[in-house]
Amino acid sequence: MEYQNILEEIHATLKNVPEKGTVASYIPELEKVNINRFGLYLLMLNKEEHGTGDFDIPFSIQSISKVLSLAKALHFTGADLWKRVDVEPSGNPFNFLALLELEKGIPRNPFINAGAIVVSDILLSYFSDPKKDFLNYVRELAEDDSINYNEAVARSEKATGFRNAAAANLLKSFGNIHNKVENVLDFYFYQCSLSMTCRQLARTFYMFANSGKNASGKVFLTPSQAKRINAVMLTCGFYDEAGEFAFEVGLPGKSGVGGGIVAVHPEKYCISTWSPGLNEKGNSLLGMQALEVFTTRTGLSIF
Amino acid sequence: MEYQNILEEIHATLKNVPEKGTVASYIPELEKVNINRFGLYLLMLNKEEHGTGDFDIPFSIQSISKVLSLAKALHFTGADLWKRVDVEPSGNPFNFLALLELEKGIPRNPFINAGAIVVSDILLSYFSDPKKDFLNYVRELAEDDSINYNEAVARSEKATGFRNAAAANLLKSFGNIHNKVENVLDFYFYQCSLSMTCRQLARTFYMFANSGKNASGKVFLTPSQAKRINAVMLTCGFYDEAGEFAFEVGLPGKSGVGGGIVAVHPEKYCISTWSPGLNEKGNSLLGMQALEVFTTRTGLSIF
Amino acid sequence: MEYQNILEEIHATLKNVPEKGTVASYIPELEKVNINRFGLYLLMLNKEEHGTGDFDIPFSIQSISKVLSLAKALHFTGADLWKRVDVEPSGNPFNFLALLELEKGIPRNPFINAGAIVVSDILLSYFSDPKKDFLNYVRELAEDDSINYNEAVARSEKATGFRNAAAANLLKSFGNIHNKVENVLDFYFYQCSLSMTCRQLARTFYMFANSGKNASGKVFLTPSQAKRINAVMLTCGFYDEAGEFAFEVGLPGKSGVGGGIVAVHPEKYCISTWSPGLNEKGNSLLGMQALEVFTTRTGLSIF
Amino acid sequence: MEYQNILEEIHATLKNVPEKGTVASYIPELEKVNINRFGLYLLMLNKEEHGTGDFDIPFSIQSISKVLSLAKALHFTGADLWKRVDVEPSGNPFNFLALLELEKGIPRNPFINAGAIVVSDILLSYFSDPKKDFLNYVRELAEDDSINYNEAVARSEKATGFRNAAAANLLKSFGNIHNKVENVLDFYFYQCSLSMTCRQLARTFYMFANSGKNASGKVFLTPSQAKRINAVMLTCGFYDEAGEFAFEVGLPGKSGVGGGIVAVHPEKYCISTWSPGLNEKGNSLLGMQALEVFTTRTGLSIF
Repeated sequence: MEYQNILEEIHATLKNVPEKGTVASYIPELEKVNINRFGLYLLMLNKEEHGTGDFDIPFSIQSISKVLSLAKALHFTGADLWKRVDVEPSGNPFNFLALLELEKGIPRNPFINAGAIVVSDILLSYFSDPKKDFLNYVRELAEDDSINYNEAVARSEKATGFRNAAAANLLKSFGNIHNKVENVLDFYFYQCSLSMTCRQLARTFYMFANSGKNASGKVFLTPSQAKRINAVMLTCGFYDEAGEFAFEVGLPGKSGVGGGIVAVHPEKYCISTWSPGLNEKGNSLLGMQALEVFTTRTGLSIF
Repeated sequence: MEYQNILEEIHATLKNVPEKGTVASYIPELEKVNINRFGLYLLMLNKEEHGTGDFDIPFSIQSISKVLSLAKALHFTGADLWKRVDVEPSGNPFNFLALLELEKGIPRNPFINAGAIVVSDILLSYFSDPKKDFLNYVRELAEDDSINYNEAVARSEKATGFRNAAAANLLKSFGNIHNKVENVLDFYFYQCSLSMTCRQLARTFYMFANSGKNASGKVFLTPSQAKRINAVMLTCGFYDEAGEFAFEVGLPGKSGVGGGIVAVHPEKYCISTWSPGLNEKGNSLLGMQALEVFTTRTGLSIF
Repeated sequence: MEYQNILEEIHATLKNVPEKGTVASYIPELEKVNINRFGLYLLMLNKEEHGTGDFDIPFSIQSISKVLSLAKALHFTGADLWKRVDVEPSGNPFNFLALLELEKGIPRNPFINAGAIVVSDILLSYFSDPKKDFLNYVRELAEDDSINYNEAVARSEKATGFRNAAAANLLKSFGNIHNKVENVLDFYFYQCSLSMTCRQLARTFYMFANSGKNASGKVFLTPSQAKRINAVMLTCGFYDEAGEFAFEVGLPGKSGVGGGIVAVHPEKYCISTWSPGLNEKGNSLLGMQALEVFTTRTGLSIF
Repeated sequence: MEYQNILEEIHATLKNVPEKGTVASYIPELEKVNINRFGLYLLMLNKEEHGTGDFDIPFSIQSISKVLSLAKALHFTGADLWKRVDVEPSGNPFNFLALLELEKGIPRNPFINAGAIVVSDILLSYFSDPKKDFLNYVRELAEDDSINYNEAVARSEKATGFRNAAAANLLKSFGNIHNKVENVLDFYFYQCSLSMTCRQLARTFYMFANSGKNASGKVFLTPSQAKRINAVMLTCGFYDEAGEFAFEVGLPGKSGVGGGIVAVHPEKYCISTWSPGLNEKGNSLLGMQALEVFTTRTGLSIF
């Protein structure tokens, strides 16, 4: 099988490189992950699937969850959402709150923390039992009820999340948080604590490659909404390295500090990787390299 | 009496100008103040005193309290305080949190909110009953037990103080807040809610003109500490208008959004004004004009 | 013919909208253009072509030329170019020089002015007769010797280009300009003064849709270089509106203040528009709308 | 003589400290100065004078000249000058051009380079033979015709002054330079190249301690203008260390990267120091220490 071979070759080549980056250490739960974990998983639009390495071991998806919150909030509000969050790259790693002030509390995009906190606030206004409802939404997307939060991670994030509390309070001062700050933060930290395997991640994101329908054809987004979220992933999905990822890999995608990356080629496939070592920009070092080799070898980038 | 005449002329001239600025409106308690209130009060080092207008009506001193917190904290910690707060003008009105990030959680000076919050955190670590102890300190300075907090103001600030909560959380993320964020903020809002008359204010600040001793000669600061706080008032006492105040008035001083200003001429006098209308930089419009005329008429500036 | 019909419908609908934006006025040569000019041109990979409106009237391509300079410089230097210019979106419209200082003279990407000035400096080091050689390069790409500079535009830009002179001097202070500042600026202003029609523009950019080969199959870039320039166009091609263009249109593209836009769908087509009225971000108002309708109607976006 | 003794003790104590800072190296002429040079000079209002060490050896006064340009320009224009330059501390060492952009080409104060360049532009509009006229002005202030420019320094500054050229072009783009950019820069670099001894420096600045009159009583500024320049020196005279200097020394003053500092106590004295080693903020290390000891020992600060 060709794709299977490519994945296995990538895995074999990269798993032995000495430079694997650094595991995120700001909360103990992330730090104790084995840096040698490395999984790759490919799900074609025709549901053909290929995996290699640790693709069935769950990890903390962290910021990858921001795409799912955005999808659900966009489903609830339609284009009104874009009045409260913009779609421009942030391009400003050095002072995450400065732009928020300059731009009067409208976060630059839904994938910086400030933007994801606004999205959480929106979900809080629509859900009746937010944590449960959001989990059910994700399980439905993936068609997998074993997906769950990691409560230890959620608690740990909350105990140290002062920068997020700073952002949430600043948003509140501009009127761009409607619920109570502590409730929004609590819900936000839970979303980030979702655990998934590479396989589950690819299944969950299948809908972005498939015009808004999951693998069973159930509609979660309109084709236009799916296309637009893909555009935002491409321009804003990798912190201050979004340009680099577009340049090297050429796919819409999203990374998390747990070491996961998921990327989609609209109408073609969804691919996920997990390697916990991060580069200095906070993206999985081997994951980015694996995806670069994959799109170069297969020619399957959008550019 | 010459000084009395000068104060009365200034009062008579300015009280009828049509442009009085705008009363602070971010909390209801401040907004309901009569914009025509106008008081001036002068206390010479020899305790000769002169007042005109509403100099015996209490108002919310707001940020003026930051000088008193600083004095007490400096008394407790000595020069160690300056490891946690710098003494440079902020010069950056547009993004109050940006500099804090760039400078790793060390506020530019003790009179921007972030700096005053760190000072509150220091006091919290030394006081056994912070609100009571701080009030007693101020009463002792002024030798006046009728000075008090305005609890409605404190509650109101707290209910809307999201920007301060943002700053406090950001400071905490850098390790520059040692106590619990909510306790620090609660104490900080109380300090800002102090009510004083012009007369009480001048008596409280007498020590800065008198090398650290209050009107009865009791020592609260070393001469060197008093001198240094005066230097910080001169360079940082008027938000983004510190240079303007030094330029126009030529005295160390501090303003508050309640419309009060207090200024000192070391070894000579202490002067206070109250007019609730603010200019666009947040400083009392008539107060600044009154002090400019006063130092021009008397020649009593430090330059 | 279906595409022809779509173009004509778009043209017919939009040409009568009352809100057409504002013609760039910073130099007289741009200001005197008729705001009602409106052209659309589509060139498929199989060379099938469709045009409507003013697609054969030349206009000043301005910043669109930055893509062509980049292509030539990348051809000369290979990946070394990326040591002197980054590929991240700028996301910072308010202070174009601030990021340059913070990032030690490495412009965020080759499409902000500072980045394009560095690219001009590179070309200056390789060309023997820069203005002539660059023009020949463009003519070869388009296979059209009638393309030319507009010298009045070039002179006008030079006479008023103080911000670009500021950027060039700042770059020089960081050692990221190797030639004389005035020579670099002179060459840079000439490039921006290129005049083309929509048809010529689409032919020139054909190579970006065709893996680096122009319509006659002549190789100007490697497939990988073409793909990477497309990625940079997508993330950085529209000033502070790159995210918006990716979101609304979903194609790599580049705009200029002359009112032109060109966009490519790799392996499928190249499309160009011209309408001189700009939106408040400096991109052609009708041009962006036309492209949005086109990709929505045809479904031909990359997402 | 008491003051003489104090100066000599300070000189004796500090001249042997091992840590002397770093000599400015951005142009060869500054770098070749002997780091062990150290002079102190005190001129009382009654013209009593005291000097110790290298107080009669000339050095490059560099930015100290900005105060003299300001004085002359203020004499020419009166308060209109403040429409083109503000009086607020810059407080923003990290991006000298960012604030200029944000504030639409109005430099924060006349002592940052951008502000001094605007002041040079003003002088250029008034002087008939700018370099000669400015030199005559300084000689008249000091009553000393031996003061001169150092042409090698001026040429060297010009050859490497790309950051100043960036600032000047940015100012020009905002319309805040009226003459040709190259003429303004040429004149600006000459002013900075003035050579003086500590003794000459103190005599030149005598007028700021003496309400605008030089040692022979000739009037160069009104008392109000002198007072205001003192206020600006206090708040803005030491780059990003103005607060620190006010805090430690407590006098209006100005430093230059040649290692000179001059400070005044209005109505009392003028003091100058020279030690070429700079601290990391660009101010003379021993000079600042010497002045701190002097004001502490004598109690002669303005606070």
